[in-house]
Amino acid sequence: MDLIIVILDLLGTFAFALSGALVGVRHRLDLFGVLVLSFVAACGGGLMRDTMIGATPPAALEDWRYIAVAIAAGLLTFWRAGAIERWRNPVQSLDAVGLGVFAVAGALKAQAFGLGPVGAMLLGMLTGIGGGMVRDVLVAQVPTVLKAELYAVAALAGAGVVVLGKALELPLTAVAVAGVLTCTGLRLFAIRRGWRLPLAEPPDSP
Amino acid sequence: MDLIIVILDLLGTFAFALSGALVGVRHRLDLFGVLVLSFVAACGGGLMRDTMIGATPPAALEDWRYIAVAIAAGLLTFWRAGAIERWRNPVQSLDAVGLGVFAVAGALKAQAFGLGPVGAMLLGMLTGIGGGMVRDVLVAQVPTVLKAELYAVAALAGAGVVVLGKALELPLTAVAVAGVLTCTGLRLFAIRRGWRLPLAEPPDSP
Amino acid sequence: MDLIIVILDLLGTFAFALSGALVGVRHRLDLFGVLVLSFVAACGGGLMRDTMIGATPPAALEDWRYIAVAIAAGLLTFWRAGAIERWRNPVQSLDAVGLGVFAVAGALKAQAFGLGPVGAMLLGMLTGIGGGMVRDVLVAQVPTVLKAELYAVAALAGAGVVVLGKALELPLTAVAVAGVLTCTGLRLFAIRRGWRLPLAEPPDSP
Repeated sequence: MDLIIVILDLLGTFAFALSGALVGVRHRLDLFGVLVLSFVAACGGGLMRDTMIGATPPAALEDWRYIAVAIAAGLLTFWRAGAIERWRNPVQSLDAVGLGVFAVAGALKAQAFGLGPVGAMLLGMLTGIGGGMVRDVLVAQVPTVLKAELYAVAALAGAGVVVLGKALELPLTAVAVAGVLTCTGLRLFAIRRGWRLPLAEPPDSP
Repeated sequence: MDLIIVILDLLGTFAFALSGALVGVRHRLDLFGVLVLSFVAACGGGLMRDTMIGATPPAALEDWRYIAVAIAAGLLTFWRAGAIERWRNPVQSLDAVGLGVFAVAGALKAQAFGLGPVGAMLLGMLTGIGGGMVRDVLVAQVPTVLKAELYAVAALAGAGVVVLGKALELPLTAVAVAGVLTCTGLRLFAIRRGWRLPLAEPPDSP
Repeated sequence: MDLIIVILDLLGTFAFALSGALVGVRHRLDLFGVLVLSFVAACGGGLMRDTMIGATPPAALEDWRYIAVAIAAGLLTFWRAGAIERWRNPVQSLDAVGLGVFAVAGALKAQAFGLGPVGAMLLGMLTGIGGGMVRDVLVAQVPTVLKAELYAVAALAGAGVVVLGKALELPLTAVAVAGVLTCTGLRLFAIRRGWRLPLAEPPDSP
């Protein structure tokens, strides 16, 4: 079971790092910039979570495997950005898996550090979406997750399943699996159906 | 007294969250993006302060009342952005109250965690202005507070009153009230009189 | 020796603060905005490092000398931006010294707080480049270090010398001097020769 979690976690890291590197290549960053965006997209959410819950130094700076996977994804994208673009569908599916694993792992870690249910849900969501937000801020763009996709809500739902399962004292493994399936499934559905959240009327419309 | 502080603090949170949500609506974010900007504008300064002084997990993730008030302000703005725009004057006054309460509370908390006078003043100011800065960065704008208003200086003055009062060993309640009045009063005057800080000559002007 | 380190550190702080203030003046920030950019450019990297390794409150909020030097550089630039622009070459050399000192000091502090070799290298680099990144994000620009210069690699090399020297148990003073010389030398060479890192082919090129 633990091995499966690590593999899913590394797959998610890889997918998130690809998204960061692609944004870097599209914005004409140099090799270093592309690798920074890979790392930040993959590990930024976890870095923010760990810093805020006082789990210092953050896990992303301690475990070389995550750094290595992020850099490998960055180098691959740097040399073969066109191919990564063409594999958009499998990359997006991997990204949905990563979102689920990150949201669940983030909520569990936040609870282990004493956060209450609301804080754990927010930090689970942040673990999933924080890296992509920093990635977009670094290229001076409004984060995609704030305006274009049903993405954060899937992460929030996955983290919510964890918090609910813990409150009901269900077995941890079942809760974690249910959380990942909820988040990843919701995200995949949203991609296929083109689901989006509503926008407000701008204040000066009639 | 404590009840008054909580009420003022929640009013300030509400006003800051309205400012965040309005920015979100104007930039055509979706419902989730608007709520993120509400929360970040209201709680971002406190989150940064608590993370930097080691008060983890941050209070904003522990106390559901602040999260609830921020989300309520976000939903209200999402549905009634036009009305919030028309109430600009009362909202701006509430915001000035929030600035004073946040700056004073931030400086007090920083001192309680062992910061010296300069650090406590800076963190009091950051508590007041940090949320608005993150709000603007997330929509890829230069933070308003850096270029357009006499806003941060009011927060710094309020935090300075706290630090000075503590150094003179004056009673805490009087010091806190004086700090809030200084900051909020200065901010309201600045709005009414259109006070601004000077700009430098750009380097290539004659 | 300690005195030399403090002097170099303050010189680096001064040079970094000048870079922040110049960016602020060019973007037409007001006096407060210019001082914020001075402080952030000078101390932002250290603030992020200290927060992430749990060294709270961060040194930059505790030691008034760094704050004073940053503000002095900001005021100087505010009044004499044209002169600072004309002194571009000496300022850039000072900046290279600052980069070396910050990268080495950052890596040493990270190791003292228990980070492993990879984490210490990354945090040494972040200490050198983080302030400039926050400076650029605050004026809604893509950080220069991600796209235009051989800058971060020099910081990484300096931090790497520290980590390597520690692993080989060489005397600390020699290791620190070698790290600063490596980083600063590499940076000065890169400026003179116009060295840059490669860019990737954009995904839609033929």
